[in-house]
Amino acid sequence: MNLAEAAVKKLKEVHKPRIDKELKAALENEKNLIPFKNDVFIDAVEKLEDFNLRGGKRLRPAFMVEGYRCVGGENIDEIYKASIAIEGSEAYLLIHDDIIDEDELRRGKPTMHKMFEADLESSHLPMEKRKHLAEGLAIVIGDVQATMNYDWFLKTNFPDNLKIKAVGRFNDILRLTSYGQLLDIMSETKPVEMVKEEDVLTIHRLKTSAYTIYGPLQIGAILGGASEKESEIFYNYGDPLGVAFQLQDDILGLFGDPKRTGKPAHSDLREGKRTLLIVKALENADAKQKERLLALLGKRDLTDEEAEEAREIVRETGSLDYNREMAKKLANQALEAVEKADFVQEGKDYLIGIAEYLINRDV
Amino acid sequence: MNLAEAAVKKLKEVHKPRIDKELKAALENEKNLIPFKNDVFIDAVEKLEDFNLRGGKRLRPAFMVEGYRCVGGENIDEIYKASIAIEGSEAYLLIHDDIIDEDELRRGKPTMHKMFEADLESSHLPMEKRKHLAEGLAIVIGDVQATMNYDWFLKTNFPDNLKIKAVGRFNDILRLTSYGQLLDIMSETKPVEMVKEEDVLTIHRLKTSAYTIYGPLQIGAILGGASEKESEIFYNYGDPLGVAFQLQDDILGLFGDPKRTGKPAHSDLREGKRTLLIVKALENADAKQKERLLALLGKRDLTDEEAEEAREIVRETGSLDYNREMAKKLANQALEAVEKADFVQEGKDYLIGIAEYLINRDV
Repeated sequence: MNLAEAAVKKLKEVHKPRIDKELKAALENEKNLIPFKNDVFIDAVEKLEDFNLRGGKRLRPAFMVEGYRCVGGENIDEIYKASIAIEGSEAYLLIHDDIIDEDELRRGKPTMHKMFEADLESSHLPMEKRKHLAEGLAIVIGDVQATMNYDWFLKTNFPDNLKIKAVGRFNDILRLTSYGQLLDIMSETKPVEMVKEEDVLTIHRLKTSAYTIYGPLQIGAILGGASEKESEIFYNYGDPLGVAFQLQDDILGLFGDPKRTGKPAHSDLREGKRTLLIVKALENADAKQKERLLALLGKRDLTDEEAEEAREIVRETGSLDYNREMAKKLANQALEAVEKADFVQEGKDYLIGIAEYLINRDV
Repeated sequence: MNLAEAAVKKLKEVHKPRIDKELKAALENEKNLIPFKNDVFIDAVEKLEDFNLRGGKRLRPAFMVEGYRCVGGENIDEIYKASIAIEGSEAYLLIHDDIIDEDELRRGKPTMHKMFEADLESSHLPMEKRKHLAEGLAIVIGDVQATMNYDWFLKTNFPDNLKIKAVGRFNDILRLTSYGQLLDIMSETKPVEMVKEEDVLTIHRLKTSAYTIYGPLQIGAILGGASEKESEIFYNYGDPLGVAFQLQDDILGLFGDPKRTGKPAHSDLREGKRTLLIVKALENADAKQKERLLALLGKRDLTDEEAEEAREIVRETGSLDYNREMAKKLANQALEAVEKADFVQEGKDYLIGIAEYLINRDV
């Protein structure tokens, strides 16, 4: 078994079950904390329980545990307890994102606002009003989840000074994520040919590198007493890795086999997704290529032939090569940063393994 | 000058200017913390600055300062710095509430989602899409503000153990507020005759008593080293006072002089607001009164005569007396709780004065 396989196995068989167990216990306990035994409150916590526990790889809390381990942290039970704060944040942000994206499904089940919409079906209100109130309820239940996360974090028994420092970092990371989300929505309001490479990369650095990779690692490491220098290593690993992962994800989305990626064929093209592949292709395209690519992007009934035509433009303009090379360069930077680090071997192996998995996976 | 006048003068002339100064400094500083000098991020912080500083009585942060003072806290500069976290929460919750309530104005200027909507006016997107994305941007900027609040709190130099305890309470209070908001929206989804007295009171206890009164007092007091017993006194003061204030507010809304209250005439009736005045009147009404009141509630073009008819039903069913008596009883409970407390006199005077102001004001 190579490092990538070992890391994935550990994520699935060690981290996920322990994280899920803590998450379930914390949410069960929330029911005891509810004031005024009102059905509305019990129902809200049960909805959050369903939403949190219905799936998810637990990549972020696992990074938090591994960051802690890398710098020699030994209170493993406690770091798992703290780690669920970061998984709860994912729930809170997804609940809000799903409203914004008007998504109906999340991890194979209805999104939070759709769950509330179903509850309100028998109400006397007109459909539009019900839909709006269901979104309102989902905004607020997201806010409820947001406060729970801090609670879960602060109730752990790490030293006070480390907890304050780690919560500060947790906060910073959530702020970076939300800034990334603002930029992402803003870029959606522009015609695709106005979107700049720099914006696409900034969105990846905030919404993926910071939020999913180096943020959780640093938060865990702070609880393990990490030095500034160690924190920086996690940044040097996570910042390029997050971008490499997203570039690779976009390449798979456009050129991958739908049977293997699990995404519907041509979905990125049909949705007009503003990937760097597209942004760069438009930048390099001649007038004819540009006109054609813009016509194909966001076309809901795109045919196989048209999709192939779009892919051909991405290839011909050199955008595919550009993206591949950038992803490769960034992935190497990430690996280098951690390979030379003086971390506990077990944590280091995980970071190398998971990076290899994230970059090389073809599904 | 009586205690009520002195408290209001202190709120306006001492607390508000100091709180506003700290709030402005903190938001200015946020600009320095932004990663990647992108216009979108600078603009977001400037929007938050505008929103936070455009008005507001600062009742909550002032309570936090006074709670701290009541138990003998002496680091007044620092408690003002911490107090803005609670004012920032108000901004964050209002931004989200305004989306839910589809409000266009807040403190005389456009609500956050309306500000974003104006920005997107020149976009190529259709109006409905722009409106939806503007709401999404407002959800996310609210989330940005939420993380800032924790930061402002944690950066103060109170002892770590007290900060952790106080942030825990801050968290609890935000959670109670959001639970109250869930119940409030849920009650909007029911026909008014299905709304129960208990639900109305629970909403007031969560959204006003906890959020506006005893929560801020307790958070401040914890930073001043308050005992459990002292915390309880704030609860015994704030829990009834919040409800008394809301009941009184509803009475003014229905029976007050629009010239003095500043609210448009009959606005509570026209909006079909689910006040305890209405809920109790419906509960006590005979079949004819009930039918008539239900017909008048929510009537957009309600005439002066019809409004008087509704008021008459609220009087005849004994609901007005019931509400008045409950408000009076609760106000007395609140005053008693604090009168016998062993608090620093200056803080105590403020609590008594502001309670008298909140209950007796007729504007």
